[in-house]
Amino acid sequence: MASPNTNQEKEGVVGRVLALPKVVKEKVLGISRLTKEIAQDDPRKVIHSVKVGLSISMVSLFYYYQPLYENFGLSAMWAVMTVVVVFEYTVGATLGKGLNRTIATFGAGALGVGAHHLASLSGATAEPILIGAFVFVLAAIASFIRFFPKVKARYDYGMLIFILTFSLISVSGFRDDEVLEMAHKRLSTIIIGGSACGMISIFVCPVWAGEEFHYSTANKLEILSNFLEAFVREYFKISKEGESEDNIGDSKDKAYLEGYKKVINSKSSDDSLVNFARWEPGHGKFKFRHPWDLYLQIGAFSRQCAYRMEALNAHLSSDIQGSLEIHCTIQELCLEMSLESSKALKELGSSIKTMTRSSSSNRHVANAKVIVKSLKSLFQSSSWNETDLLSLIPVVTVASLLIDIVEFTEKIADSVNDLSTLTHFRIEDIDKSPKPKPSQSSNCECIESSPKTDSLQLVILVEESMLALSESEKSNIV
Amino acid sequence: MASPNTNQEKEGVVGRVLALPKVVKEKVLGISRLTKEIAQDDPRKVIHSVKVGLSISMVSLFYYYQPLYENFGLSAMWAVMTVVVVFEYTVGATLGKGLNRTIATFGAGALGVGAHHLASLSGATAEPILIGAFVFVLAAIASFIRFFPKVKARYDYGMLIFILTFSLISVSGFRDDEVLEMAHKRLSTIIIGGSACGMISIFVCPVWAGEEFHYSTANKLEILSNFLEAFVREYFKISKEGESEDNIGDSKDKAYLEGYKKVINSKSSDDSLVNFARWEPGHGKFKFRHPWDLYLQIGAFSRQCAYRMEALNAHLSSDIQGSLEIHCTIQELCLEMSLESSKALKELGSSIKTMTRSSSSNRHVANAKVIVKSLKSLFQSSSWNETDLLSLIPVVTVASLLIDIVEFTEKIADSVNDLSTLTHFRIEDIDKSPKPKPSQSSNCECIESSPKTDSLQLVILVEESMLALSESEKSNIV
Repeated sequence: MASPNTNQEKEGVVGRVLALPKVVKEKVLGISRLTKEIAQDDPRKVIHSVKVGLSISMVSLFYYYQPLYENFGLSAMWAVMTVVVVFEYTVGATLGKGLNRTIATFGAGALGVGAHHLASLSGATAEPILIGAFVFVLAAIASFIRFFPKVKARYDYGMLIFILTFSLISVSGFRDDEVLEMAHKRLSTIIIGGSACGMISIFVCPVWAGEEFHYSTANKLEILSNFLEAFVREYFKISKEGESEDNIGDSKDKAYLEGYKKVINSKSSDDSLVNFARWEPGHGKFKFRHPWDLYLQIGAFSRQCAYRMEALNAHLSSDIQGSLEIHCTIQELCLEMSLESSKALKELGSSIKTMTRSSSSNRHVANAKVIVKSLKSLFQSSSWNETDLLSLIPVVTVASLLIDIVEFTEKIADSVNDLSTLTHFRIEDIDKSPKPKPSQSSNCECIESSPKTDSLQLVILVEESMLALSESEKSNIV
Repeated sequence: MASPNTNQEKEGVVGRVLALPKVVKEKVLGISRLTKEIAQDDPRKVIHSVKVGLSISMVSLFYYYQPLYENFGLSAMWAVMTVVVVFEYTVGATLGKGLNRTIATFGAGALGVGAHHLASLSGATAEPILIGAFVFVLAAIASFIRFFPKVKARYDYGMLIFILTFSLISVSGFRDDEVLEMAHKRLSTIIIGGSACGMISIFVCPVWAGEEFHYSTANKLEILSNFLEAFVREYFKISKEGESEDNIGDSKDKAYLEGYKKVINSKSSDDSLVNFARWEPGHGKFKFRHPWDLYLQIGAFSRQCAYRMEALNAHLSSDIQGSLEIHCTIQELCLEMSLESSKALKELGSSIKTMTRSSSSNRHVANAKVIVKSLKSLFQSSSWNETDLLSLIPVVTVASLLIDIVEFTEKIADSVNDLSTLTHFRIEDIDKSPKPKPSQSSNCECIESSPKTDSLQLVILVEESMLALSESEKSNIV
C-alpha cells in the first residue's frame, strides 16, 4: 500500500501537469485583462504606441530606399536609432531627449574631430596613446559630471551621448576629412530623426507633460477632498441621503479612503513631469515659462495633507474610537470643518482644472478657520472635567489632524491664488450662493443630544464670525 | 538732471558688467565646491568615473587596432556603444542593462532575420510594404508592452533595444546571408562590450546595489532614532550632560530634526535599488535570492514613522506648546518612551548593519510598550479635571504621535527579526546589560515638581511590568 505522502506527491505532479493548460490560459487571460485595463484607463497610451510604430516604419523606409541611402550611407541608421531612442510618451520628454542628443552630438563631434586631428599629427606610435588618453579623460570627467544633481535631472542623456559620440569619432581609424564627413553625416541624420520625432509628438495627438502635471495637480486636490468626505462619513458613521445601495457607496468610500496613498508617493513623478514640462514650448493655455514651481509647491502641501490623512486612516481602523460623548459633542464641528476643507479643496482643484478664479474656495477656507476657532473655544469650555483623558486622546488627535489639514488647505489656497494671479485665470461671473444645508444626515446614536438647531446656529455663527476674522488671527491657528 | 531712476539703471548696467568676472569666478568656485562635496561625500563616485573612462578607452583601443577591426568591421562600434550605454553606477544596474541588451538583441536579431527573409521572398514590390508593416506592428506592440508596470520596472531597456535591433536588421537592404552575418556580428560585439562592463563593474571596486539597499535601510532606522533623540531634547528643553559647546549640539540636533525628510521621500530610490539588487549574483553576505521584500517592508514602516515625525516637527515650530503643568507631568514618560523607541531603532539599525541578532532591541521595544501602558493609565487618572482641553491638545497629540511611533517601531522590530531568521544573522555572544540611567539631565523649569525619584520608580515599574506584559495586550495598544 502506498503511503498517503507518496499518493499526495503523485497527485501533486499529475495535478500540476493537468493544470498546465489552465495556468497558461490564466496567464494569457491576465495579460489581455491588463492590456484592456491600460488601454481603457488611458487610450492615449494606445495612440502613443501607434505613433511610435508609424514614425519608426516611416524613417525605416526612408533608410530602405536607395536614394537616401546613397546620400548618407550607413549613417542613415542613426536616424532610425534616434527615433527609437528619443520617442517618449510626453512631448517634453521627447524634446528634452532630442535636444540633448543633438547638442551633445554636435559638441562631442566637434571635440572628437579636434582630438582625432591632434592625435594624427603626433605620429604613428603616439597616436593610439593620445587617443586613449583623450577618451579616458573625457569619459571620466563626463561620467563624474553626471552625478551633479542638476545635470542628472536635466542633461543626463546628453552627457551619455557626449561620451558615446566623442569616443566613436575620435577612435575611428579614418583620415581627417573622412572623420569630418562622418561627424557631419551623423549629426544631420540625428537631426532628421530627432525632428521627425519632435514633429510627430507635437502635431499628432500630443501628450504635453505640462498639461499632465497641471491636471495631476488638480486631481491631487480632488483626491484629498474625496478622502475628507469619505473619512467623516466613515468616522462619524454618516450615510448619504437618498443612497439606495449601501454597497456601492461603501466601495466608493473605500477607494476614496485609499486615494491619499497616490498623493503621498507623488514626489518623484512630480519632479520628472516638471522637468519634462520645462522643455516644452508654449501650448494651449500654458506659456513657455509657466510658473511650474507653484505646482511643485501645491504638490508639497498636498503631500503634507496626505501624511495627516495617513494618520487619520490609522484611526479609522483602530478599535479604540474614544468616548461616545465627546465624539458627539465635537462631531458637528469636526464634520462641518472637514466638509468645508473638502469643499475648498474640491473648488481649488476645479479652479485649477478649468483655470478660472473662484471666490467660493476662499469662503470655504474662511468658514473652516472659523470652525477651528469654535472648536478651540469648545475645547476650552469646562464641560470636559468629568471625562478621563484616555478616551479623549483618539478624538482630540483626530480633531488636531483635521485642524492641521485646514491649515494646509489654506496654504494650498494661497498658492492657487498666486497661480491664478500669475497666469491670469478667468474670473467666474456668477458667484454661486453658499448652500447652508449639507446634503448629509447623521445616523449617529447621539443625534437626539445634538439637535439640528445646533447646526443651524453654527452656520449663523460661522457667517457672523467670518466678517470678524482678521489676518492677524492666522498665526493663532495650530 | 537725470532722474534717480535713470541713474539707478545706469549704475545697474555698469555694476553688472563690473560684476561679471566676480560672477564667473563664483560660478567656477561653486562648481569646484560641488565637485569636492560629491567626491568627499562618496569617493566611490570618483572611482566609478575612472572605471568608466578606463573601460571605454580600453574597448575603444581594441576597436582602433586593425586585427579586431578586420574581424568585426564596422560592427566593432557596437562594443564601444554597449560599454558607454550599459555601464552604470551599481553592479545590478549594469548587469540588468547588459542582460536586457544582450537578450533583446538576440531575440530581435532572430526575428529581424526571419522578417527580412519572409519579405524578400515576396517580390520587389511587396517587400518594402511587408517590411514596413512588420516594423510598424512590432514597434507598436513593444511600445505598448513598455507601459506594463512590471515590464517598465525591469525590462524597459530591453524592449527599447528590441525595437531598435529589429528595425535596423529587418530594413537593412542586404542579401539574406549578409543580414545573418550582420546580426551575428552585432550580437557578438554586444556580448564582448557587455561582458567587459560586467567584469569591470564586478571585479574592480564593485558598488553592489544590494549592499547599498542594505545599508540605506539600516541608515533609515538610525535617522529615525536620531530624530527621536533630538526631538525630545528640543521639545522638553533638555541638554546633554557634559556638552561644553551648545552651538555644536544645536546644529547637530537641527540636522537630526531634518533627517526624516530623506526617509519620507525614499520610496522611489528603494524601488529602484531593490530592482537592481535582484539582478545581482550572490556576493559577500548576500545570497542570490536575498529576502529584499523584507527590506521594502522595513522601508515602508520607516516612512510611516517619518510621516508622524513630520507632524511632530510641526509641533516644535508651533508657538502653542500647551500647558506647562501637563508638559511636566507626562514629560518623564514621553521622554522615556521616545528614548526607548530611539534606542530600539538604533539597535535595529546596527543589527542590520552588522548582521547580528541583538536581544536588546526587543527589550527596548518591550520597555516602550510598558511605558505606553503607564502613559495611558496616567491619562486615565483624574488629575486632569482642572485643566482646559485646549491646552491639552498639543501635548496629547505629541504623545499620541509618539505612541504611534512605538507601534511602528515594534513592526520594524518584527520585520528585522524575520530578516535575521531568514538570513541567519549571527547571534551576539555577550548580552549587554541594560543601562538604567540615561545620560541626560532635565533642565525643564518644572524639575522641582517631578523629582528624580519618580524616574527611578518608573524604571522599577517598567522592569516589573515587563514580566507581566503578555502578547494579548498587544492589541490594546493604540
